[in-house]
Amino acid sequence: MTYIEEICESVLSRIKPTDEERSKLAALAGRIIRKIDSLGSERGYDIKGILVGSSARGTWISGGHDLDIFIMFPPHLDRKHLEEKGLEVAKAVSLDAQSSEERYAEHPYIHAVFDGYEVDLVPAFSVDSASGIKSAVDRTPFHNSYVIFRIKGIEDEILLLKQFMKGIGVYGSELKTHGFSGYLVELLIIYYGSFIKTLVAACSWKKGEIIDPENHGTVVFDDPMTMVDPTDPARNVAAALSLDNMCIFIDRACEFLEKPSESYFIHALAGVLDDNEFVGILGKRGTSLVGVIFDTPDVVEDVLYPQMHKFEDSVCSMLERYDFRVYNSSVWAGDKAVVLLELESAGLPAVRKHTGPFVSNTSHAKKFKSKYEESDTFSNVYIRNGKYMVELPRKYTSSKKLIESEIMNCGLGKHVGMSIARRYSVLENEELLGLTDDDYRRFLRKFFEK
Amino acid sequence: MTYIEEICESVLSRIKPTDEERSKLAALAGRIIRKIDSLGSERGYDIKGILVGSSARGTWISGGHDLDIFIMFPPHLDRKHLEEKGLEVAKAVSLDAQSSEERYAEHPYIHAVFDGYEVDLVPAFSVDSASGIKSAVDRTPFHNSYVIFRIKGIEDEILLLKQFMKGIGVYGSELKTHGFSGYLVELLIIYYGSFIKTLVAACSWKKGEIIDPENHGTVVFDDPMTMVDPTDPARNVAAALSLDNMCIFIDRACEFLEKPSESYFIHALAGVLDDNEFVGILGKRGTSLVGVIFDTPDVVEDVLYPQMHKFEDSVCSMLERYDFRVYNSSVWAGDKAVVLLELESAGLPAVRKHTGPFVSNTSHAKKFKSKYEESDTFSNVYIRNGKYMVELPRKYTSSKKLIESEIMNCGLGKHVGMSIARRYSVLENEELLGLTDDDYRRFLRKFFEK
Repeated sequence: MTYIEEICESVLSRIKPTDEERSKLAALAGRIIRKIDSLGSERGYDIKGILVGSSARGTWISGGHDLDIFIMFPPHLDRKHLEEKGLEVAKAVSLDAQSSEERYAEHPYIHAVFDGYEVDLVPAFSVDSASGIKSAVDRTPFHNSYVIFRIKGIEDEILLLKQFMKGIGVYGSELKTHGFSGYLVELLIIYYGSFIKTLVAACSWKKGEIIDPENHGTVVFDDPMTMVDPTDPARNVAAALSLDNMCIFIDRACEFLEKPSESYFIHALAGVLDDNEFVGILGKRGTSLVGVIFDTPDVVEDVLYPQMHKFEDSVCSMLERYDFRVYNSSVWAGDKAVVLLELESAGLPAVRKHTGPFVSNTSHAKKFKSKYEESDTFSNVYIRNGKYMVELPRKYTSSKKLIESEIMNCGLGKHVGMSIARRYSVLENEELLGLTDDDYRRFLRKFFEK
Repeated sequence: MTYIEEICESVLSRIKPTDEERSKLAALAGRIIRKIDSLGSERGYDIKGILVGSSARGTWISGGHDLDIFIMFPPHLDRKHLEEKGLEVAKAVSLDAQSSEERYAEHPYIHAVFDGYEVDLVPAFSVDSASGIKSAVDRTPFHNSYVIFRIKGIEDEILLLKQFMKGIGVYGSELKTHGFSGYLVELLIIYYGSFIKTLVAACSWKKGEIIDPENHGTVVFDDPMTMVDPTDPARNVAAALSLDNMCIFIDRACEFLEKPSESYFIHALAGVLDDNEFVGILGKRGTSLVGVIFDTPDVVEDVLYPQMHKFEDSVCSMLERYDFRVYNSSVWAGDKAVVLLELESAGLPAVRKHTGPFVSNTSHAKKFKSKYEESDTFSNVYIRNGKYMVELPRKYTSSKKLIESEIMNCGLGKHVGMSIARRYSVLENEELLGLTDDDYRRFLRKFFEK
C-alpha cells in the first residue's frame, strides 16, 4: 500500500458512515417518506416523498445528521398552491418532530429535528426534465437520479474528496463560503474516476477551466471554473465557486500529491486571539484597524453574507476614493456583525492636490481658476504637466470621520442597511477588543495570519 | 489710447534703453571689437570681432549690462586650434578689464567685466551656413543676421514681450528656467508682428504647436512647442521650453488680454518665509518635509540644474517605489544645494503586502512558497485574486532611512554625485530651518504657496 493509500484508508475509517449509522438514517428517512405519502392519500393530494442529497447517495460524512426530503407535487399546480399545500404537508409531517421552523429559500420549507437529525422538508415540482423546472429546488431530484447510478462503488472517493475540501476550507457552495458543492464533488469524481485522479487533474487546472461531462454545454460562463450540469446544458454547477477557493484547491492538491499528509483532511481552527496578542501584533504591523460594528440582522447566511461583502467592498472603495489605503478587509458575523479594515494609516494630511483641466482659454479652465482663486486653499492655482492644479483642504483627514459621515451612502443591502440605520459604531484598534466571542477572536487571528 | 496701449507705453518708459545708454554700450562694444581686430593683425590671425545678441539688435532691457562679442575664426581651423588661439586673444582683450575669468560652455570662453558691463568673449567659427556649424555657438551670428534686418521698427514689441515673460517668470532658456530664449522672443514678434498679436495667438496655442516662419522644417520634434529655426531647418529654437512654462505663458497671455494690468510685467519675488510661518504652514498641511542638503558643486547653472533635477526625479521615484507618496518636490541652490520633498507621511507601517505568481504547479510558484514559508513574515502565504500573496516586513519604514541607505543608488549627475559622496545630510521638518539664506526662504514660501 502506498503512503497516499494508507492516508486515505485512515481518513475513510474516520469519515465513512457505519452500517448502524446507515440503517438508522434509512429507517428515519423511510418513516418520514411513508408519512408524506400517507398524508397525501388522506388529503387527496397527488404527492410523493423522496430522499435526495448525500444521504440518498450514501455520500455523507459520518456524523453528519442531515436529511433532505422533497415533497414532490405535480407540475401543473400553480406556485402559490404548491407553497400552501407544501407547507401544510411539511408541517403535518413535523408534528412529531422534536422541533421545527419555517425557513425560506426560493420558497418556504420546513426545517425540523427528528431524533437528533436535521431534516429539511422541501416542497418541489415533479417536472419532466431539468430544463423545465419551475423553481431552483426542482432541479435536485434530477441531480439525484444522474448521480445515484454513476457513483455505485466509488462512494469512498467522494467521501475522500469532500473531506479533503472540508479540511482545506473550500467545501460548501453557500454564499458565506463560495466553495465546492456536494453535487460538484460528485460530478468531479464521476468525471475523473477517483479522488487521486481528481487531484492530479486539478493540479493542471487553469482559470476558466471547463468540464462538460455530457458534452452538451450551450452557454459560455465568465466564472473561474465551469462544470456544465449534466442535467441542464445551460447551467454551471460551479457558479458559486470563487477564484480563490478554486486556487486554494489547486494549490493544496499539488502540495498533497507532492508531500501527502493526513493533515489536509483536518480543518484546523485558528486559535483564539487574546488581548495581549492583538496589541502585540498590531503594534508590530504599525497599521491602523477600523471596524464597523452593528447588530447582525436576523436573516439566513445566504442573505447576510452577500450584504456584508457588498458593504465591505463599498467601504473599501470609498476609503480608497478618499486616499486611505486599505491593506486588508474582512467580515465576521455572530450576534454582532463586523466589517474590519486594516489601513496604512487612519489619518491623512489636511492638504490634498486637486487636478483641474488642461491649460487653455476655455470657460471650463476659467471656471476652475476663478473658483479656487476665491476659496480657502493651501496654494495658489498653479500649472503642472500642462494642467491647472491647486492644493485644497482634504474633506476627511480621519477614516473614522469619513465612515461616520458617509456610511449611509455606501452600498448597503436591505437588512444590513436597516441594522446600520438603527445603530452602529466605528471602533479603532484596541476598541475592537470589546467583542470577546471565541469565533470572533479566531477570525481576528486569521485576519492577521491568513 | 486703449488701456493696453497705456500699459505698454508705461512699461516701455521703464525698460527701453535711453540714447545715452545706447551710445555708451555702442562705444564699449566698438572699443572691444577694434581691439580684437587689431590683435588679429598684430599676431597674423585671420579673425574678426562681431557684436551679437540683444545688444547688437537694440533689444536689451534697459539696465541690462551684458555684451556678447564673438571672435570669428576661419572655418578650416581645427577645433583645438580655435580653443587655444581663441582663448589667447580673449585673454589679451581682457587685460584692461576690471576682472575676467575662463568659463566653459561647449568650448572655453572668457567672461570679463569692462566699465561695469558683463562681456562674454566667445571664439567661434565663421562658417558659410548655419547647417554647416562646427560648434553650437557658431549658429549665433546667423541668428543675428536673420533677426537684425527683420526687427527694424518693431524693437519695442520685442522689449514688451521679453519684459512680459520676465514678469511671469518664463524668460530665459537656461536649464534652470526652461523658458523662452531671447532669439525665440524675437522670432515670435517677427512672425506674429507685434506683442499683442503674439499674446492673442498664444492664447490659442496647443501642446505640440508648430511655427515654421521659413516653411522649411525637416524634423518633427516631440517638444511641447516647435519654432523651426529660420537659419536651420533641422533645429527647434524652442527645444528648451518646458510644457509648464509654455502653459504659464498661454495662461497669462489670455488673462492679460481679458484683464490687462502692468503687474504682469513686474516679477514679484516671493516673500521671505520666517521660522514661525514655516512651522505654522507645515502644521496646517499635516505633511512631512524631507530635504537632502549638500554643498553646491562649483559648476555653472546649466550643468548644475540638470543634475539637481535628475537627482530630484530619482529620489522621488525611489520614494514612490518604496510606497512613500510624494506630494511636492523642488530644488534650490545657493551655497548649499537642497532637494526638498513633501511627503504624505515620513513613515510607513512595518508590514507590506507582497504579490507572488499566479497559483499553479510551476517551479516559480513553488519557489515563492518555499521561500516565504521559511522566512520571517507577518502572514502565511495565502491566495488572493488567484495569486500567491504574503505580508512581509517593509525594508524601510522611514523615508529618511531609505534615502540615507540608498542615496548612492540614485541617479546622480557627476558633480552632484561627487558632492554628495563627500557629505550630505537628510533633514526633516523644522531641521530644514537651519538655512537662513533669504533666497532659500523665498524658495520655501513658493514651495508651499506655488
